[in-house]
Amino acid sequence: MGRWVIISTDRAKRPTDFIRERVKLKGGFCPFCYGNESNTPSEILAFRRNPNGGPPRAKDAPGWTVRVVPNKFPALGIEGTLGRQAEGMFDKMNGIGAHEVIIETPDHNLSLGDMPEKQIEEVLWAFRDRVLDLRRDKRFKYILIFKNHGEAAGASLEHSHSQLIALPIVPIRVAEELQGAKQYYVYKERCVFCDIIRQELDAAVRVVSENEDFLTVAPYAPRFPFETWLLPKRHESAFENSSSQMFEGLARALKDLLVRAERVLDNPAYNLIIHSAPAQDAQLDHYHWHIEFMPKLTKTAGFEWGTGFYINPTPPEEAVRYLRAALDPVVNPIGG
Amino acid sequence: MGRWVIISTDRAKRPTDFIRERVKLKGGFCPFCYGNESNTPSEILAFRRNPNGGPPRAKDAPGWTVRVVPNKFPALGIEGTLGRQAEGMFDKMNGIGAHEVIIETPDHNLSLGDMPEKQIEEVLWAFRDRVLDLRRDKRFKYILIFKNHGEAAGASLEHSHSQLIALPIVPIRVAEELQGAKQYYVYKERCVFCDIIRQELDAAVRVVSENEDFLTVAPYAPRFPFETWLLPKRHESAFENSSSQMFEGLARALKDLLVRAERVLDNPAYNLIIHSAPAQDAQLDHYHWHIEFMPKLTKTAGFEWGTGFYINPTPPEEAVRYLRAALDPVVNPIGG
Repeated sequence: MGRWVIISTDRAKRPTDFIRERVKLKGGFCPFCYGNESNTPSEILAFRRNPNGGPPRAKDAPGWTVRVVPNKFPALGIEGTLGRQAEGMFDKMNGIGAHEVIIETPDHNLSLGDMPEKQIEEVLWAFRDRVLDLRRDKRFKYILIFKNHGEAAGASLEHSHSQLIALPIVPIRVAEELQGAKQYYVYKERCVFCDIIRQELDAAVRVVSENEDFLTVAPYAPRFPFETWLLPKRHESAFENSSSQMFEGLARALKDLLVRAERVLDNPAYNLIIHSAPAQDAQLDHYHWHIEFMPKLTKTAGFEWGTGFYINPTPPEEAVRYLRAALDPVVNPIGG
Repeated sequence: MGRWVIISTDRAKRPTDFIRERVKLKGGFCPFCYGNESNTPSEILAFRRNPNGGPPRAKDAPGWTVRVVPNKFPALGIEGTLGRQAEGMFDKMNGIGAHEVIIETPDHNLSLGDMPEKQIEEVLWAFRDRVLDLRRDKRFKYILIFKNHGEAAGASLEHSHSQLIALPIVPIRVAEELQGAKQYYVYKERCVFCDIIRQELDAAVRVVSENEDFLTVAPYAPRFPFETWLLPKRHESAFENSSSQMFEGLARALKDLLVRAERVLDNPAYNLIIHSAPAQDAQLDHYHWHIEFMPKLTKTAGFEWGTGFYINPTPPEEAVRYLRAALDPVVNPIGG
């Protein structure tokens, strides 16, 4: 789809060759912690386990496992109209949208990869519930869910959280991905991601792991060292339309990947992005939702900004050898 | 051209609000320093001032002012054929191209902004000479010149240098920019950049400075705080086709911008990218070469990766007030 990546095969970088800081907790007052609920805007959603027979817990009080609040410093505001208009030769519009924070745990010391699968599954259910709610607002054309882990990946608060941004337009990179997938579909009459799944299972050199519902692979042309994708094996264009059973499988796959990455890369900063179909679209045959995981091991520099191409010092097959070996001590990662 | 930027006008970030490290020299052995010429691959080009009547200086010896060498760890190699072929559903080709380093000064302690205008002009001439040489090789479809200043911007060596990469394909972001400019031209029958120059001179709120040949402006929709563009006032699609006089004006404009940025942002890390027409194209009426300057004040995070949209906490008009005031102490940057 027009993306080229330069892979250096001569001097492949191993996990220890990357100079960067591991993500460490600094502590201090945290508005996302248990008991500090009054320091965030009032919650939009929270999962609470009610004590046997007890009364339902109060809003914005402790007792939650996952909590969703509006971003205190939103990039976009929920009120008003778009008012798209010209300013000279340019266009401008009001910043209409939603910007929410999903607090993934009440425990400040747990990273997403440290959490039990059950807790990760609850986070995924919170994502789904928020998307289902927000997509009823027809102003929102795209809903992006992403996670920045660690300062180097752009996280400004260290307590484990994800973010959701609902946008009034389908963003350009999403439109590109959709268009690329569409072109492939028109030509082949098959979903490109379904084909990737078949080809990768067959080639078996870029598969990190799999379970009944999900395949974890390094893409053929990863932009970043150790970039990894989680693909649902069954075709589905929107994350939020996945069946209940899928969330359990996804929680397992996600935990598996995060544990591997933490071991191999020593708790790296990372971005995690859910790629899903536009909010107002019906089921698409040509698009397949998935998650992209990008550890932050290198700095994006002039070459990448100027071209949209990437130079990746670690071949994907090499990265996969390390990620596989992380949970399978019998395999020798050097392959020697 | 499909690029939207979210500008936070409520809580605009001032220069001192950005937490980051200023670029500092660490020292140690440097292969780019005067006298260490044997520690780089043999030079491709060097400007030397011969002493009056003396013999020409030897290659790879001291006496140079600007020196161009092949990158010791090239992303792409100059020998061979592309050999583009399928691998399953994907395409691959050999990494054919050129990757050169322009050492901008023999003095380890000078940043580009510290150099005299005359020296900056020599750097620009070196850029031009290399492009003119490389574009004769018809395999090269695009030649990118860029500079990473400071570790945060991706520089791995601190001695002031730029890089040149010649590519066998026109990269996707360049193709997008060209296509956007073409669409505008088809509709308006004018170059979009020429229109931007006229509009910005007229509005006067985003102009940092100007000289006879160049205009320095913050773009209407900057992706990054303090992003600034240098535009040649006369229409020209390729950097290397600029007239001699232009290089003198560009050196002045570049020095002016870098000094302003260093003062306002306390020696920030930055990327500088020359946007120019594809190497094998004839003069284009719809495209206008320019330089984009992007200080590294924020981290690119999940939102930007997922959408291609940017959240910029500093409105361009605000950034420009600071940059203007940097060399004009009479103006009050706060506007109060």
